[in-house]
Amino acid sequence: MGAVVDLVADLGESFGAYRMGDDEALLDVVSSANVACGFHAGDPRVMDSTVRACVRRGVGVGAHPGIPDLVGFGRRALEMTPNEVRTDVLYQIGALSAFAAAHGTRLRHVTPHGRLGNLVVTDDEYAEAVADAVQSYDPLLIIVAQEGRLAVHARSRGLPVAVLGLADRAYQDDGTLVRRSEPGAVIHDSREVAERVVRMVTEGVIRSINGHDIPVRCDSVLLHGDTPGAVELARTVRRELVAAAVRIRPLTEILATKNGNTR
Amino acid sequence: MGAVVDLVADLGESFGAYRMGDDEALLDVVSSANVACGFHAGDPRVMDSTVRACVRRGVGVGAHPGIPDLVGFGRRALEMTPNEVRTDVLYQIGALSAFAAAHGTRLRHVTPHGRLGNLVVTDDEYAEAVADAVQSYDPLLIIVAQEGRLAVHARSRGLPVAVLGLADRAYQDDGTLVRRSEPGAVIHDSREVAERVVRMVTEGVIRSINGHDIPVRCDSVLLHGDTPGAVELARTVRRELVAAAVRIRPLTEILATKNGNTR
Amino acid sequence: MGAVVDLVADLGESFGAYRMGDDEALLDVVSSANVACGFHAGDPRVMDSTVRACVRRGVGVGAHPGIPDLVGFGRRALEMTPNEVRTDVLYQIGALSAFAAAHGTRLRHVTPHGRLGNLVVTDDEYAEAVADAVQSYDPLLIIVAQEGRLAVHARSRGLPVAVLGLADRAYQDDGTLVRRSEPGAVIHDSREVAERVVRMVTEGVIRSINGHDIPVRCDSVLLHGDTPGAVELARTVRRELVAAAVRIRPLTEILATKNGNTR
Amino acid sequence: MGAVVDLVADLGESFGAYRMGDDEALLDVVSSANVACGFHAGDPRVMDSTVRACVRRGVGVGAHPGIPDLVGFGRRALEMTPNEVRTDVLYQIGALSAFAAAHGTRLRHVTPHGRLGNLVVTDDEYAEAVADAVQSYDPLLIIVAQEGRLAVHARSRGLPVAVLGLADRAYQDDGTLVRRSEPGAVIHDSREVAERVVRMVTEGVIRSINGHDIPVRCDSVLLHGDTPGAVELARTVRRELVAAAVRIRPLTEILATKNGNTR
Repeated sequence: MGAVVDLVADLGESFGAYRMGDDEALLDVVSSANVACGFHAGDPRVMDSTVRACVRRGVGVGAHPGIPDLVGFGRRALEMTPNEVRTDVLYQIGALSAFAAAHGTRLRHVTPHGRLGNLVVTDDEYAEAVADAVQSYDPLLIIVAQEGRLAVHARSRGLPVAVLGLADRAYQDDGTLVRRSEPGAVIHDSREVAERVVRMVTEGVIRSINGHDIPVRCDSVLLHGDTPGAVELARTVRRELVAAAVRIRPLTEILATKNGNTR
Repeated sequence: MGAVVDLVADLGESFGAYRMGDDEALLDVVSSANVACGFHAGDPRVMDSTVRACVRRGVGVGAHPGIPDLVGFGRRALEMTPNEVRTDVLYQIGALSAFAAAHGTRLRHVTPHGRLGNLVVTDDEYAEAVADAVQSYDPLLIIVAQEGRLAVHARSRGLPVAVLGLADRAYQDDGTLVRRSEPGAVIHDSREVAERVVRMVTEGVIRSINGHDIPVRCDSVLLHGDTPGAVELARTVRRELVAAAVRIRPLTEILATKNGNTR
Repeated sequence: MGAVVDLVADLGESFGAYRMGDDEALLDVVSSANVACGFHAGDPRVMDSTVRACVRRGVGVGAHPGIPDLVGFGRRALEMTPNEVRTDVLYQIGALSAFAAAHGTRLRHVTPHGRLGNLVVTDDEYAEAVADAVQSYDPLLIIVAQEGRLAVHARSRGLPVAVLGLADRAYQDDGTLVRRSEPGAVIHDSREVAERVVRMVTEGVIRSINGHDIPVRCDSVLLHGDTPGAVELARTVRRELVAAAVRIRPLTEILATKNGNTR
Repeated sequence: MGAVVDLVADLGESFGAYRMGDDEALLDVVSSANVACGFHAGDPRVMDSTVRACVRRGVGVGAHPGIPDLVGFGRRALEMTPNEVRTDVLYQIGALSAFAAAHGTRLRHVTPHGRLGNLVVTDDEYAEAVADAVQSYDPLLIIVAQEGRLAVHARSRGLPVAVLGLADRAYQDDGTLVRRSEPGAVIHDSREVAERVVRMVTEGVIRSINGHDIPVRCDSVLLHGDTPGAVELARTVRRELVAAAVRIRPLTEILATKNGNTR
């Protein structure tokens, strides 16, 4: 039986009269969506129509909670206590889940946005606060994360974890990402990106920035859509995966086919 | 078997460093709570601690969605489309329900706050939008409302409705409230208020402003807590109801003991 | 000596990571800018860079205060008291004027945005509240408005008023606009729009929707820039005015050359 | 000629329906006010009435800009670029100055609130960004600060600086404050606080936490008003200063009587 993977992108980031991203185009590419919840982006109308569009196409809906900073788009760290992180994440998960219920589906996953997403990789307090929120709300929700503190804490509680692969980012020998500020951190050539994703998914390895093949787990590949080029790249990745006989499936199916991660 | 009634108050209206209301005192008086959801008042920490306090005391948790206007405390009408009303209410119900789930309970009811609460009494579009939101989220949620358009639309959809009695307000002969701007609209004497509530609950009648005994239904009595006098009044109402052998019970039990309103 | 007119557009409507409008293109066309002040659109960075760009090109800076409703883009009426209107407008004028001072200029005019701009045409309380704010802040600020209640109240206080001509809108016989909801309210043909503007400015007349030439005053022509077509239309209007020997000048110069409106 | 000092407190921190602080009581004690500008606290109505009350009593009005985080009351650090700090401060200074103009006065000083106030003591980028904002808006505005990076950068630009003395805080031998987390950091005895303030103002010395008399400059004493005890303490400080023949005067007069700090 061949390889399977989930393709995910950040959707629903428009706000009021402001448009962001090409959600229509990405919905044809992905199998899951990280939907903004109103703190860093998104509003109740955008959340409603994004969830509706996901349901129509069979795309799995996930919450994308962020730091409460609309003007900063959730990209600026804020000095939050663990209780503030936990309650802000709970609030956002709940808000999005109302639209899931209204459209006859359920949330499938949670993945922190932007700076919050960076912080949970390295900071135990942020990671535990997010895990607390998810666990207390619904311990069957899948936490989607890069390898790091959130993945560790979620697993230690028995929460299902899907590991995120970053299509266009360089990896270090230890499997962590090369920092954006360093040369070569972002890979721009779409053919190269697609090849790397295919290897990651079919062979479970990626070539590090130092030229070594290192093992990586990848349950879900993060695609972007903020630029026309990004949408084209997303399409290329999907096409090459399909050409390599990889099946694109929602997260719940991915985890069910892999050993012992879901309960 | 004697009369039963629910006592409810608006709780969780603090925000950040700002305190409002004497929630501790009211939690000893009420059987249900209208909890603010962050649009007109409340924040994720306040929602979390309010729901926790309700659960500890067996107080039923309800959502109190408002117009998105924090500086106006949800008291100013905003020109909203039905879709805006529906999605804003869905968002707020969902956000609060996350805290209910985290504390091992469920939302029991929904009742619109402030100006939104006024508008659903008279405006069909607002009333239907709120009913749409509740129905699509969970058709077992009880809608708590004064007699008016929201109650009518909710009943026509088969949604459970609890009728709100306003303890300190004068009624007209047709069972609607005397407007606040008119003389005698608000009753200030706590003994008189308590007597009126007892009659409303035990006899199903209230004396109108014109001196006629008119039939009223009252499943839940709304109490206030923003002033020390209000808390004292709330305590008096509870004491006099108990003295009249009325049992104070959460809304779900009230509706279950009355005929055919819940499903 | 030939005719003169000001060309104005709404600028600085981006917010955080969200872009709106083609400010760069419009800055080459206009002589004045209505700059959003952060309540319905705009943020401190956008205000700063917009004012800087205006100063560099000699474009006059005006405040464009709106209803405090970012998600609604200031397009939804909010039930505000006159004191709320007055203080919200004062706040926004002051905020923008800080950026004017920082870039070595001064605010030249004030014109309410969106729904607030509609309301001051017909509602005396809103009109007086805006006039109060401007008068108390700086009685030399020019109020830019369509003919209506704001213009009337501003003139009765001796405040300078510039009358706004709407390039692409049909007029009724009494000089007021045909409502957007009615057929023919918006004129889409760019040649026709340009011809109407030229007549308005050079002859002081416009052909009404009923085919009558009616007298209109027009100190400033409002152009739009939210679509590529709109920018092209703006350029056409400017080109045709120049071809008709009309000089495009900032508002302060327009009023100084006309009789007795400024003090 | 005897000693003079300014007494200042944080005022105008209410928001919408939420009350904070006893502004009425403090207005009888202070000679200057740090007025919140809407980002961490305050709203246009509160700003308007606070400035009006200051003008009526001859209290000098200053801007108290904060981090844009209403729910956190400006007490949480936010990862801001220097440009974000500068433009957020400019916006807030401008907004408050509109109310000053409307009430016939001018802003006298600027002092950052809460976490921003802490950061400018130690962080050069934050300090320079605030100094940039003030300098570009009005280089005659007095910057009120503890000794630290903001004071240093402001002086190096020739901006007037008033040094803030903290009435109820312990000092280290080097003239900086003992951190709140350490024992003895806050002095609670009102008689002791008043005695320390009188020595600081009349002798220019304060007894450090290690028991040494160290030289301190104090142009303005910060008083609090969030608790009844705090108001009583503020009154005691004022009474003891007056008893020691110290004149309580607004900041502009303080700096004018001291050598060479103002321009």
